Amino acid sequence: MNRLNNILNPASVALIGASRKEGSLGKMFLEAILRMDYKGDIFPVNPKADEINGLKCYPNIHALPFKPSLSVILLPSQLVIESLKELAEFGVKDIIVVSAGFKEVGGEGIKREEAIKNLVKQYNLNLLGPNCMGVLNTSPNVLFNGNFSPVLPNPGHVAFISQSGALGVGIMELMKESDLGFSVFVSAGNKADISENDVLEYLAQDVNTTVITMYLESIDDPKTFRKIASKIASHKPIIALKAGRTAGGHNAASSHTGALANPEFIMDGFFKQCGVLRVDTLQELINAARAFSSQHLPAGGNTAIITNAGGPGIIASDYIEKSGLSLAKLHKNTVKKLREILPAEAAVTNPVDMIASATEETYSRVAEIIAQDDGVDSVILIMVKPPVQTTPRKIIGALQELIHNCSKTILPVLMAARDEDAGMEIFKSMNLPLYSYPEEAVQALSAMWKYHQYQQRFRKSEAVVVKPKMKDERLDYKGQVPFKDLNNLLKQYDIASAPFIVSGKTEEIIRFQKKLSSDIVLKIANEQIIHKTEAGLVILGLNDARKIKDAIAKMSEDAALLLPKDISPLFLAQKQIKKGIELVLGGKRDPLFGAIVMVGIGGIFIEVIKDVSFRLAPVNAYEAKEMLAELQSQVLLNGFRGNLAVDRDSFAYTIQQFSLLLAEHEEISEIDLNPLIWIEEGNFAMAVDMRATVKVE
Amino acid sequence: MNRLNNILNPASVALIGASRKEGSLGKMFLEAILRMDYKGDIFPVNPKADEINGLKCYPNIHALPFKPSLSVILLPSQLVIESLKELAEFGVKDIIVVSAGFKEVGGEGIKREEAIKNLVKQYNLNLLGPNCMGVLNTSPNVLFNGNFSPVLPNPGHVAFISQSGALGVGIMELMKESDLGFSVFVSAGNKADISENDVLEYLAQDVNTTVITMYLESIDDPKTFRKIASKIASHKPIIALKAGRTAGGHNAASSHTGALANPEFIMDGFFKQCGVLRVDTLQELINAARAFSSQHLPAGGNTAIITNAGGPGIIASDYIEKSGLSLAKLHKNTVKKLREILPAEAAVTNPVDMIASATEETYSRVAEIIAQDDGVDSVILIMVKPPVQTTPRKIIGALQELIHNCSKTILPVLMAARDEDAGMEIFKSMNLPLYSYPEEAVQALSAMWKYHQYQQRFRKSEAVVVKPKMKDERLDYKGQVPFKDLNNLLKQYDIASAPFIVSGKTEEIIRFQKKLSSDIVLKIANEQIIHKTEAGLVILGLNDARKIKDAIAKMSEDAALLLPKDISPLFLAQKQIKKGIELVLGGKRDPLFGAIVMVGIGGIFIEVIKDVSFRLAPVNAYEAKEMLAELQSQVLLNGFRGNLAVDRDSFAYTIQQFSLLLAEHEEISEIDLNPLIWIEEGNFAMAVDMRATVKVE
Repeated sequence: MNRLNNILNPASVALIGASRKEGSLGKMFLEAILRMDYKGDIFPVNPKADEINGLKCYPNIHALPFKPSLSVILLPSQLVIESLKELAEFGVKDIIVVSAGFKEVGGEGIKREEAIKNLVKQYNLNLLGPNCMGVLNTSPNVLFNGNFSPVLPNPGHVAFISQSGALGVGIMELMKESDLGFSVFVSAGNKADISENDVLEYLAQDVNTTVITMYLESIDDPKTFRKIASKIASHKPIIALKAGRTAGGHNAASSHTGALANPEFIMDGFFKQCGVLRVDTLQELINAARAFSSQHLPAGGNTAIITNAGGPGIIASDYIEKSGLSLAKLHKNTVKKLREILPAEAAVTNPVDMIASATEETYSRVAEIIAQDDGVDSVILIMVKPPVQTTPRKIIGALQELIHNCSKTILPVLMAARDEDAGMEIFKSMNLPLYSYPEEAVQALSAMWKYHQYQQRFRKSEAVVVKPKMKDERLDYKGQVPFKDLNNLLKQYDIASAPFIVSGKTEEIIRFQKKLSSDIVLKIANEQIIHKTEAGLVILGLNDARKIKDAIAKMSEDAALLLPKDISPLFLAQKQIKKGIELVLGGKRDPLFGAIVMVGIGGIFIEVIKDVSFRLAPVNAYEAKEMLAELQSQVLLNGFRGNLAVDRDSFAYTIQQFSLLLAEHEEISEIDLNPLIWIEEGNFAMAVDMRATVKVE
Repeated sequence: MNRLNNILNPASVALIGASRKEGSLGKMFLEAILRMDYKGDIFPVNPKADEINGLKCYPNIHALPFKPSLSVILLPSQLVIESLKELAEFGVKDIIVVSAGFKEVGGEGIKREEAIKNLVKQYNLNLLGPNCMGVLNTSPNVLFNGNFSPVLPNPGHVAFISQSGALGVGIMELMKESDLGFSVFVSAGNKADISENDVLEYLAQDVNTTVITMYLESIDDPKTFRKIASKIASHKPIIALKAGRTAGGHNAASSHTGALANPEFIMDGFFKQCGVLRVDTLQELINAARAFSSQHLPAGGNTAIITNAGGPGIIASDYIEKSGLSLAKLHKNTVKKLREILPAEAAVTNPVDMIASATEETYSRVAEIIAQDDGVDSVILIMVKPPVQTTPRKIIGALQELIHNCSKTILPVLMAARDEDAGMEIFKSMNLPLYSYPEEAVQALSAMWKYHQYQQRFRKSEAVVVKPKMKDERLDYKGQVPFKDLNNLLKQYDIASAPFIVSGKTEEIIRFQKKLSSDIVLKIANEQIIHKTEAGLVILGLNDARKIKDAIAKMSEDAALLLPKDISPLFLAQKQIKKGIELVLGGKRDPLFGAIVMVGIGGIFIEVIKDVSFRLAPVNAYEAKEMLAELQSQVLLNGFRGNLAVDRDSFAYTIQQFSLLLAEHEEISEIDLNPLIWIEEGNFAMAVDMRATVKVE
């Protein structure tokens, strides 16, 4: 059973701190509940009143006729802990703490929040808050408006989880006049116990919720979030606005709820990995939610535009190509049929511009023709107030049946006032989200198409099985892992590295070169010397015994100045790899996200334009290919200046194995393979330089 | 006098093709005029009617009591030319052709449009259209609603030039319920004669217009646009939505008005150069126009947020940093004063989150404190419907006087329904644009700040005088310009290039190297050999007579295989420039835009990530520095891996001179300096390789 079951479906509710005082939390919360037709018992608890809003008031929880299913604490912060303890001892398990004055204010507040956490643990409570606005459940069996907002939102199928309660109120108020309705609202507050992850789990199985929207300022447990969200996203869309993207926003988020810093650089990759649609603005969130909650997903990205006004059609076209959708190429029969019924001034290729003379009949006939074109997955239907004897109302009226029976996704745009001619109630009854601007509709459609691709990806990605490689042993070093051991570790995970030996003996190195019969690179290998290249202690292009001897002699002399007296020079001799495309793999262990893997284009690119992609480790080869597709320098991966293209499947496998290494070897805090050189003849990436650090506890 | 004077301020208007038929253009146009209180004479012209809508109707133009100040042609396309000719012969100069069926339909339409153009020339007409919706002028002295839209827009101070008439109608209809009002609307249609440039010139001097907005699908004369727009933009903002950005959108634009293709790659740079704010969406256009038409420009980018809800404040902070604005750092006295009046749970750093208990008094006291902080240029004022005993109406009421007297830019956000509590009429009476979402207000503010910076830039840029360099002579080649002559030309414009000689004589080359006492590069110089590097006909690092002799001998042998029998090898010997940051300058002559200059980071960057910036030539050094600032690889310009930073002033001067060369030498169709190498010791860029082509007519 989900932890929010009683909180969102309470059979009875006790309001600790219910009040008669105008403007008090205790009064507002009670009145909000009464504003909906809540069927359970309501028990105001307040020693100073006998009755509030016509309801009998109880002096304390022990006086209640029975143990309430949910208790809400509305007291000043300094009284919360005592009250919570009393409730817990009384045997109440499900509690909302609305009161503010905890973690978010610092100082004493932090201590009070710790005390709440301890009580949660001690009594095994389900606690929402503190510093939250409450909840809402518009399910017809529940009708519980348990929050202190003055707004009673439209019922519907969109759930909203908000780390800022007031933001939720704002959105629901703004949406009162729209076609968007809410199933569940949860104000998560400081998340001392119940987090967005618990709410997500509840919403996964809530039949009244078809779309989940979230406003987040922090993610406290990304690993769990990933597990839960990606499971949900395979069948229910999750749309998230994550604030605190930039430095400034991030300061604000921290001062607001004391949220823990989340490294921004990983966030985009993380949401993708979870299958969560990340949006940039509230409007985008809302516009997408409206489309998702009323229309089915498009089967593909091919989009047709039907319009009675040229400009809006062109603007929609522009936006379609920018948003990852594509302008459908109409079938020649479609074009022919359109040509037959439309005037010469009309445009019969996509966008179909019927011009201003279009009547409801024109709309209806054109829509019918487009509906039969298999090359069209979705339709953006644009209406500007027509100068001729028709109205949007008549137009949508004429289209009703067609739209009802149409398998394509249809998003209408009405660039006109919402007056009696608009036919708003028809759009509403048809469950069509009505947009004001073409860009809004296209953006929403693009979110749907992206989500459809996420769903497909989940299926494809699930088919890629990653076998654990881990043998029991961990690396038991502190600090940097020796070159040789790191090479062995890579080998265990099928990651190639350039052949090498580490030796102090000239003869051994000569033998090594002979056996390779290739140029070798010689580097000083003593740990004591750090800036090898700068000290001239790296020599390339050695391909015979004489050169090797000379190099060793010279390097020994130079190294002597840098080494302690009793230490002899040690050399790393490595096969010199021909130049090729340079790649980079990096990994680090983030305090919040855990193992993070990074892929980049090596050399100057990673430094100058930061051309990298991040994910939580492990990733499978399918996800790894998506990382490669995100890089900006695709030209390089596709073969450049005579280089062959990088085999993406092969490299993706290497990324997968690298991420697995990182995930399985928790002792590694940082690891870098830089560069890996793409070996065209062998069709694989070979690590040429590498370093890894084992965390010093 | 401006060409649109009579069209937008007609003393009388004749409607050729006025009609009694419901749904006809002729009826709709007349009724639209009557919908406003137009004071001039209206003359319907139609041989088949005596009277239309109570107005006397004339059989033809000769029957009119006097020559009309403006004539509007509303006839079917095939009757337009004849009617136009009759009007022109009658002496009418100012004409709107509303009729469609011209360039935009192809075939016969193109011929008809040509005929219009010829008549315009022959009779020296001022003609708007064809295929346009008409005009609107809400100036109290004019009140001319000369278009066939069913909408009567709110009067105000925003002008809208639209290449799509119907888009204009849609926008004005949507804005009916908002605080945005229009001064002038011009539907430019096919622009057979009057273009956006003429309209801009009119609007420059129209006192009723304070903001100019444009919807464009093409720019027909970019040079004139640049001249006019940059003059206007120094005192009146111009905001433009240019459609046809992407390949798809561009197809649509062409099929719609037969607009000429505009190369998209130059468009962003072009608008910047003009000082025109380019927006991506209609909503952005509108939201910016609302701010510009009601608030003064911010003096700086430092923005404070006052809010009663945390989330929206954080979202606004995020967006501020993303939009080129900055979160104001509040003065410590400000923070102290805020701390004194706000509860402990409130945040007193920016954003100032007064939390949900804030009343109108809280808003008023906080706003007063912020207003006194000199570190704040603008305020985003956010209101979520407060749960306490106040309303947005009370809040804005309490702030009225303060806002009235405040020199800071203030943009309010109301995340609540527009009901009687909202106080909409107060916001309106205060001329405050009211936004629904924090992102909208921030985006609008950022446009204002960007425009302020444009204005400052115009002043700074004007101070940079570029002296013409041109001597009389043009290059009189066809095709590629010889290396030597191109070097001379660069020298005339103060652009350095690597010292060189072209010679077939070994002795000369040896002397050249000796004099330089530096490494030289030897390249085969015969035109007949194209792929020099591939053929091994480029040799580097020659620094003594022996090496030069050997190289010449080897290259002569190799070249002999590639050269005709009677041709001796010719060599380009060039000083070998030490490696440094590689830059690129390019120029080309575009059929529409004319001379275009490009700056980029050389080598692999230009090829892999297309790190370039474009402008129309000439640019002055100030604009050139802006081009440098646009490049993505700033790290490289700032000095990288031991290189010194590029001196931006010095390089900007080179860009300026290069653009001047291109602008003055119209015979050059293409020119490339690639690479220029940054010479740290001399603090200048030196062209190492270059090529230029003179157009073959």
